[in-house]
Amino acid sequence: MPGVDARAPELPVDPELSVDQERLLRRLMSLAEIGAIEGTTGCARLALTDDDKAGRDLVLAWMTDLGLDVRIDGIGNVTATMPHDSDAAPVMAGSHIDTVATGGRYDGNLGVLAGLEVIETVLTAGIELERPLAVGWFTDEEGARFAPDMLGSLVYVGGLALEDALSIEDSDGMTVGDELARIGYQGPAPIPGPRPHAFVELHIEQGPILEDAGITIGVVEGVQGISWTELKLSGQSCHAGTTPIRLRKDPGIVASRVNVFVRELAERFGDSQVATCGVVTHVPNLVNVVPSEVAMTVDLRNTDEHVLRKAEAEFRDFVTLAAADEGVSVETRTLARFEPVDFDERVVGAIERTAASVQLSSRRMPSGAGHDAQMFARICPTGMIFVPSVNGISHNVSEFTTSDDIAAGANVLLRVMLELAGTEFE
Amino acid sequence: MPGVDARAPELPVDPELSVDQERLLRRLMSLAEIGAIEGTTGCARLALTDDDKAGRDLVLAWMTDLGLDVRIDGIGNVTATMPHDSDAAPVMAGSHIDTVATGGRYDGNLGVLAGLEVIETVLTAGIELERPLAVGWFTDEEGARFAPDMLGSLVYVGGLALEDALSIEDSDGMTVGDELARIGYQGPAPIPGPRPHAFVELHIEQGPILEDAGITIGVVEGVQGISWTELKLSGQSCHAGTTPIRLRKDPGIVASRVNVFVRELAERFGDSQVATCGVVTHVPNLVNVVPSEVAMTVDLRNTDEHVLRKAEAEFRDFVTLAAADEGVSVETRTLARFEPVDFDERVVGAIERTAASVQLSSRRMPSGAGHDAQMFARICPTGMIFVPSVNGISHNVSEFTTSDDIAAGANVLLRVMLELAGTEFE
Repeated sequence: MPGVDARAPELPVDPELSVDQERLLRRLMSLAEIGAIEGTTGCARLALTDDDKAGRDLVLAWMTDLGLDVRIDGIGNVTATMPHDSDAAPVMAGSHIDTVATGGRYDGNLGVLAGLEVIETVLTAGIELERPLAVGWFTDEEGARFAPDMLGSLVYVGGLALEDALSIEDSDGMTVGDELARIGYQGPAPIPGPRPHAFVELHIEQGPILEDAGITIGVVEGVQGISWTELKLSGQSCHAGTTPIRLRKDPGIVASRVNVFVRELAERFGDSQVATCGVVTHVPNLVNVVPSEVAMTVDLRNTDEHVLRKAEAEFRDFVTLAAADEGVSVETRTLARFEPVDFDERVVGAIERTAASVQLSSRRMPSGAGHDAQMFARICPTGMIFVPSVNGISHNVSEFTTSDDIAAGANVLLRVMLELAGTEFE
Repeated sequence: MPGVDARAPELPVDPELSVDQERLLRRLMSLAEIGAIEGTTGCARLALTDDDKAGRDLVLAWMTDLGLDVRIDGIGNVTATMPHDSDAAPVMAGSHIDTVATGGRYDGNLGVLAGLEVIETVLTAGIELERPLAVGWFTDEEGARFAPDMLGSLVYVGGLALEDALSIEDSDGMTVGDELARIGYQGPAPIPGPRPHAFVELHIEQGPILEDAGITIGVVEGVQGISWTELKLSGQSCHAGTTPIRLRKDPGIVASRVNVFVRELAERFGDSQVATCGVVTHVPNLVNVVPSEVAMTVDLRNTDEHVLRKAEAEFRDFVTLAAADEGVSVETRTLARFEPVDFDERVVGAIERTAASVQLSSRRMPSGAGHDAQMFARICPTGMIFVPSVNGISHNVSEFTTSDDIAAGANVLLRVMLELAGTEFE
């Protein structure tokens, strides 16, 4: 099997080879029946619940039916590898099968089931590879039950000690360890897990960019850096009728000025920058009372760490100024801070070339959300493939991606995995 | 007794005549013990509760001890008039003795007990008047239990039919009528009540203007007009990371722009204008989700109806523009709309001259809050006297006014009531 030649891409496989679109959709819909939210097309399979266990059991059964070597580790990650006569590290596809409380059918599940579909397609076609393919799912990617999110993949790559992960509690005080044991998914495979040859995650975009541009394949170059700040703005509660403007210390005014400022900052910095004030909570929140306190959050993201730091600095300076101007005091707390992640250009380039080779439109883009792939980027060449989300909706029962886009993404995944299996990285 | 001469004020009474400051304070503190909020100097006597009844019983006992003619009407308003050998309409002082759930000792109570103190002072001094003095309290001024506020005085002046008022329910479904009967304060005196010769209400300012300016007596010229609007801003919830700014429909941005706009409008219009966004509620109010909906309120007040309308028009135009600009839809609802009330210049002038005659600093000002006096302004010459609120705080257990300011206000009330008793209005 030939190596990658960036100048003259050569398909390593039969141009007619394709995943079985019907089988992939059937599996997606079967998995979606577990934890289905009545009256909707949505799903609730919070990590390590009974529904998550049922979902795991179903996908595990498909893996074992295919004769894959299954590995379950101490944090409940499940990886399954094609039998192979070498002990070469596999090219791994993967994502997660847990969902948020009002989730959809595609987020995470697509990456896992498309990986499984790629393996079944390759096995069925009898293609011989220099190294095996594998597919995995990683525990509690959503973080909707146990914080932080991407927990399983974080532990897999050695970013968090297993014992620390097992002692994490949900809001009812149940631990990851106890819940894993309860559902029977605390496996014997060691942590950190073995380094794959490469890692590729197919995922729905969860945003509107591809649909808006009429493009099928998102070639994900990396994950935006994230900076979350909570502001507690304290002023002076007073009567809305009896207190002249010049004597007010209104934290709501400061919050509004900050919201407008970060919006204008994002517009000024351009499309790689986003800024969001998702939380704004007035106390006491009464029509005729100037608020005494306002809590708000500011979410800043950029693909460039340097620019993200510049945005943070401008934002902090503005808060100081606006608060002082109003006589309002500020407490600032960093809720989250992650540097941007760059995916491996050899994988990114392979995805881009593959899309072109099968006549699919594509564009390079960052991921605005976190994904398991960003953890694997720490230990092996990694990339992601996005397919469009209708109306950009995700983490919502209305989440939808068309069957054609699902098949397109899975076929790109198929070809990229085959290509990477024949690529030796330096 | 001489009539009013605006050019050369002449004191109608002994310059040494003064209320008994100790007695007035003692009564304020005794009344404050009923419904006292433990561990604070605050009070909770919501209208027509057992604590309100106990407060009423106490003040009623003081009135009957003084030999006043007590009149209780069908909405539970209680007025008490000095015995007099004519049937001339009295000069009435009055306010309310109900409080909000976390109220103070002064709001309302001061106006009632100072009126009582004025009458006791006049009776003790044996001053003969051309017409009697009276004092009253009016049911449910706060509106904290039964809406609308100023209910008793509204009914007294014929602004609401008694049967409609009696059927108003609190949040537990109890009616005004049943609760009045239960506490024994549904009296036989007819509604609407008799027209006083004049009405004067002494009240704490409930704002910071007098304290800020170092002035003792606020000469209240009228009550600001009030315009309350609720905005429901609907946009498109989306992921804070994956959605570029140009594709967002963020109702939080519109809310923030509106808040900043009405603040700047108030500054532009000057001190007679205030503007407040007290309520701002984001849905879903999550750090990484652009809100789908924001509910907010805008409270605009001005002493001039014409200017208030101009403010409303500018505000409405801005909302339309800002919402369209963001692709956000708006539902607008008027929550309250009251035209400004002008007090009678003959009463206002008397208060201003009286303050000067007893060497008290004063300034003319509007009331930013609603008061029973604004109802009486519909039926007789009416005015109000404000005394300073420390830190402008009211509707709060920390509400405080100094003893000296209380005495100053009561002494101005005394002289103004005596002067008005000798004034024949056209």
